Amino acid sequence: MIRVSIVGGTGYTGVELLRLLAVHPEVEIAAITSRGESGRAVADLFPNLRGHLDLQFSEPDPGRLNESDVVFFATPHGVAQSMVPDLYDRGVKIIDLSADFRIQNIAVWEQWYGQPHGCPELVSEAVYGLPEVNRDNIRSARLIACPGCYPTSILLGFLPLLAKGLVAMDDLIANAASAASGAGRGASVNNLHTEISDSFKAYGVEGHRHLPEMEQELASMAGEPVQLTFVPHLLPVIRGIHATLYATLLDNDVDLQALYERYYADEPFVDVLPAASYPQTRSVRGANICRIGVARPQQRHKAVVMSIIDNLVKGASGQAIQNMNLLFGLPETCGLLTPPLLP
Amino acid sequence: MIRVSIVGGTGYTGVELLRLLAVHPEVEIAAITSRGESGRAVADLFPNLRGHLDLQFSEPDPGRLNESDVVFFATPHGVAQSMVPDLYDRGVKIIDLSADFRIQNIAVWEQWYGQPHGCPELVSEAVYGLPEVNRDNIRSARLIACPGCYPTSILLGFLPLLAKGLVAMDDLIANAASAASGAGRGASVNNLHTEISDSFKAYGVEGHRHLPEMEQELASMAGEPVQLTFVPHLLPVIRGIHATLYATLLDNDVDLQALYERYYADEPFVDVLPAASYPQTRSVRGANICRIGVARPQQRHKAVVMSIIDNLVKGASGQAIQNMNLLFGLPETCGLLTPPLLP
Amino acid sequence: MIRVSIVGGTGYTGVELLRLLAVHPEVEIAAITSRGESGRAVADLFPNLRGHLDLQFSEPDPGRLNESDVVFFATPHGVAQSMVPDLYDRGVKIIDLSADFRIQNIAVWEQWYGQPHGCPELVSEAVYGLPEVNRDNIRSARLIACPGCYPTSILLGFLPLLAKGLVAMDDLIANAASAASGAGRGASVNNLHTEISDSFKAYGVEGHRHLPEMEQELASMAGEPVQLTFVPHLLPVIRGIHATLYATLLDNDVDLQALYERYYADEPFVDVLPAASYPQTRSVRGANICRIGVARPQQRHKAVVMSIIDNLVKGASGQAIQNMNLLFGLPETCGLLTPPLLP
Amino acid sequence: MIRVSIVGGTGYTGVELLRLLAVHPEVEIAAITSRGESGRAVADLFPNLRGHLDLQFSEPDPGRLNESDVVFFATPHGVAQSMVPDLYDRGVKIIDLSADFRIQNIAVWEQWYGQPHGCPELVSEAVYGLPEVNRDNIRSARLIACPGCYPTSILLGFLPLLAKGLVAMDDLIANAASAASGAGRGASVNNLHTEISDSFKAYGVEGHRHLPEMEQELASMAGEPVQLTFVPHLLPVIRGIHATLYATLLDNDVDLQALYERYYADEPFVDVLPAASYPQTRSVRGANICRIGVARPQQRHKAVVMSIIDNLVKGASGQAIQNMNLLFGLPETCGLLTPPLLP
Repeated sequence: MIRVSIVGGTGYTGVELLRLLAVHPEVEIAAITSRGESGRAVADLFPNLRGHLDLQFSEPDPGRLNESDVVFFATPHGVAQSMVPDLYDRGVKIIDLSADFRIQNIAVWEQWYGQPHGCPELVSEAVYGLPEVNRDNIRSARLIACPGCYPTSILLGFLPLLAKGLVAMDDLIANAASAASGAGRGASVNNLHTEISDSFKAYGVEGHRHLPEMEQELASMAGEPVQLTFVPHLLPVIRGIHATLYATLLDNDVDLQALYERYYADEPFVDVLPAASYPQTRSVRGANICRIGVARPQQRHKAVVMSIIDNLVKGASGQAIQNMNLLFGLPETCGLLTPPLLP
Repeated sequence: MIRVSIVGGTGYTGVELLRLLAVHPEVEIAAITSRGESGRAVADLFPNLRGHLDLQFSEPDPGRLNESDVVFFATPHGVAQSMVPDLYDRGVKIIDLSADFRIQNIAVWEQWYGQPHGCPELVSEAVYGLPEVNRDNIRSARLIACPGCYPTSILLGFLPLLAKGLVAMDDLIANAASAASGAGRGASVNNLHTEISDSFKAYGVEGHRHLPEMEQELASMAGEPVQLTFVPHLLPVIRGIHATLYATLLDNDVDLQALYERYYADEPFVDVLPAASYPQTRSVRGANICRIGVARPQQRHKAVVMSIIDNLVKGASGQAIQNMNLLFGLPETCGLLTPPLLP
Repeated sequence: MIRVSIVGGTGYTGVELLRLLAVHPEVEIAAITSRGESGRAVADLFPNLRGHLDLQFSEPDPGRLNESDVVFFATPHGVAQSMVPDLYDRGVKIIDLSADFRIQNIAVWEQWYGQPHGCPELVSEAVYGLPEVNRDNIRSARLIACPGCYPTSILLGFLPLLAKGLVAMDDLIANAASAASGAGRGASVNNLHTEISDSFKAYGVEGHRHLPEMEQELASMAGEPVQLTFVPHLLPVIRGIHATLYATLLDNDVDLQALYERYYADEPFVDVLPAASYPQTRSVRGANICRIGVARPQQRHKAVVMSIIDNLVKGASGQAIQNMNLLFGLPETCGLLTPPLLP
Repeated sequence: MIRVSIVGGTGYTGVELLRLLAVHPEVEIAAITSRGESGRAVADLFPNLRGHLDLQFSEPDPGRLNESDVVFFATPHGVAQSMVPDLYDRGVKIIDLSADFRIQNIAVWEQWYGQPHGCPELVSEAVYGLPEVNRDNIRSARLIACPGCYPTSILLGFLPLLAKGLVAMDDLIANAASAASGAGRGASVNNLHTEISDSFKAYGVEGHRHLPEMEQELASMAGEPVQLTFVPHLLPVIRGIHATLYATLLDNDVDLQALYERYYADEPFVDVLPAASYPQTRSVRGANICRIGVARPQQRHKAVVMSIIDNLVKGASGQAIQNMNLLFGLPETCGLLTPPLLP
């Protein structure tokens, strides 16, 4: 059994890690930490877990974390940077769900996150935890930087086009919409039911922190710099990200459907829909899967790709466990094959 | 492996049976029938099942159904009545999720459902499939009439009070609210998103078909006739039933909290919340569990019980599988222990 | 023109007062105060008002408020108590939407609100602002205590039965459900979209602050003490209260439909639906109207009344303006006749 | 008073016309027709109108319609084509909310709508009813083809850029999302609450009927052919359209904010938000207004425009009344200035 600890367990990625790990056959949960809720039963805060987990939140105790095989960070940015070095030195594997180690250029990170990086020396050690791109590196990693939720859906959506060099790299557009859970579980007027439900809006149009992360990874896929216009929107739904991607085809003869089906034929967690099918976010609710549909409207020069995930699963906690499975030599799908909930 | 067939698989209880059975370790799905969708891949109609089930809808073929160990009916009322006799005679176990065999008094059934009963001779053979009340009878049954969704939540909520004779039997009130999935997957103006969302209403106040079923079972629990005032409401949610029950205590000294905790101490699928806690429907989303909270406001003479279920799981398909587990000597919880999805 | 000021304008009753007063033909808005948002344009906080109101939030300045003809308090409890005496002495009319002057028994107020009453000397001067009950007193009042949102729907629902003495007064039940806007616009984890949407729950079952207010007014209607069991629930909708009321009829021969139609025949803001019709909350969205349906299920001894309002309009700001119209001798319906928004 | 009749009043644009016309000071509603609901009180079908309209649906009677000053068609496509000629000949003004007269090229209409055009001779007489573009022509029109809901938001969003020739005309993108009411009030499994709520998807990616209408009008604005990539999505909300538009700037020095503010300075129903503000659909709920925000992310070459409307008001019935006001020489804003409903 893998001994797992979770730092920062009171947010939505925390409860989602617990929901998935509670039924993972190879995992034992050693500790889940929270300064604010220390001593409180997890099932008291998250009533879905009543009867499934007999565990209390505890203070983050380095001694105890050090005895884990792997520590997940489900914390706001900045926290992992301060705690990772000690764990790293002691050989504990680290899977960071926050943004702390995603961006290789320290200056870029500091600019977008508005604070000095607390652990620049380990950034180059971190492996970007998108298995469909970095599977081999993940297997041997010691520190994994899990992708953000928007990046997961957008990178998987663009990957075949960019890897094959089929589109204009300076004119990529990602029009994406996220569920409210993407904004986290913090108290906030903007995220009240009364403010969000029955409405829709764009936000962060001038610049969203996931942009530099995406341009870094897209450039790596393309083998050249890219320009991405990224406009995120807020959906009145609980879970789900829907990315609608636009790219200008260099060659109008490409068969998008065949390209995507072939590219992802062996991926357990990427599902290319049949031609003329488009994914709906509820079809991945609660599951670690990215579903993709492709189109070329009016047979013109624009490729349109629709890519969806559950932001809390393939966009966060499920993908983190997928990474853990790779790290520990388990089948990649272990504990991650429950069907989505529909309706 | 138990060979399972499902008759009428295009509704929400059908897809929910498939979702749960797809990961049930002791089950093999032989057939799922639908006249309207015959030949169509199940995963085409229900995209959550893509990759989890490689199955097509088929015409209901008695010969094929006869080879099953058990047949689930997820059909409108009237259908099971016509198909059950043949299956019953051949020794196939039947688990009927419809109302066809729930009411023992044929005349009452015919009055509320407005048509002649098609199979009155088997009604007395049918066991009412509420395991918390009829567990032993279920184990040896050949035909199980699964309770309706409202009845499951309301009967489990009232059970300790009635079984112990603690309340006035002629003054029971069940104020209940159901998710829209309770109305099924049929095309209907009244169930459009635009008609239901951001609204709330009572319906069927003059009389709802679940009333006679509930009065029958409540009387059986109480050992005397009961009068139930039942007012159902429609919630703008996808899944969930919330029943708020009112009963007049005969003895004000009863400790409701202790009563309920003791009564349900050994039940795997009934969870009595701690004192002063009240259940929320999302805490059972997707799971086969009934959560109950009790209160006595202002320490007066009214007992108030809040009882919730996921109408598609403990209120339908999950409970049907719980019955199947009992029928076939499996652990009652087999395949039914996935934690609810929250948020 | 009536010079109106609003104290505490950043909550939902504040913006709703502004929405309604912006098109009221006899009103001029002099000031809207907010310590936190002073200097900010109202339309910046509430984008629906862009182009309709050219007004900024200002510090609450007693000198300026004193120049108003009427001051609305849309504040948390406790605030009006400290500011009312000075306004009262100067002859400014006061319409308080908070709970500060609703309960005549000071000790009861202090017990339920957990603080000393700041202005006990004016409580007996306050008129409970439910026009359907107190119309004449309101016309000559100097200080109006507007009813809470639950009380408005529940009192209007019970009124004909109690005024006519037709039911058992010690066994009233109000099972009510409120929109999320009833919880206000404060930052709170419990009221996040992710916590509320697609779910339903009871809350405050042990005791809700609207209970003593309702028992006071129900007793006044009945002419004797009453006992009310009140269970509030939280709906995943933006606006609306739905109260389902239960009372035991003393005489089974009463014609509920005729009783209600006759009782409210002349009321402009109470609409009794035709027999066998039940109200849905969306049918009053944005409008100052209470719609009521009545039933006697199975012709038994329980009267069931369904009463709905928009909690922000007839349950708060609209009713406050209805009171203002009465206070200033305007037609009671002035500015309040816009049809509800459906769908 | 203008005598108004409405053909086809049982859909959402029908009830919305009624809601707005019921309080329009210059209008008298003569008739509202429906074959299916003939004889039924309008307020029975649309309970929000109880107390506001004493009117019954009637059979469409040409004689009676001929006595109207203006007839609105709120019908599926094809219906107006058959009834308009007779009304037109008798001098009755016609405001068609359907697609029947929007597309000038008959062959294109027939291709997209899959049927022969029933009245090709009047197509060139029809004026496209977007007042911000065609105000003068509308004033003297006899037959007005109201724009679709998507086109209204998208055309107003692109207009300043195209009219000024500032962008590449062969690379326009409209990523738009519509409320469920855009799909109408017909019974349909796809539009059930259970199918739509808590989900999001693209649809009609291969080709949506609003595309040719938009390319026609955009070309007219640009003075040259355009290519538009249009991807509509379905939002789990009741009302609202949000269009996110992308265009490649020919000149990076343009000040988008100033351009839009100046262009729409005198328009009563187009509101350009302050810099770095983005519109949310709820801010126009129930009101005849288009709100627009503009951005140039990372100061690159893409203009991003966010344009929102209430699809039933500025996208349909409100705009139809705006056209009526122009037709009859009333102030353009007459009856259309009620503030949006928020929250």
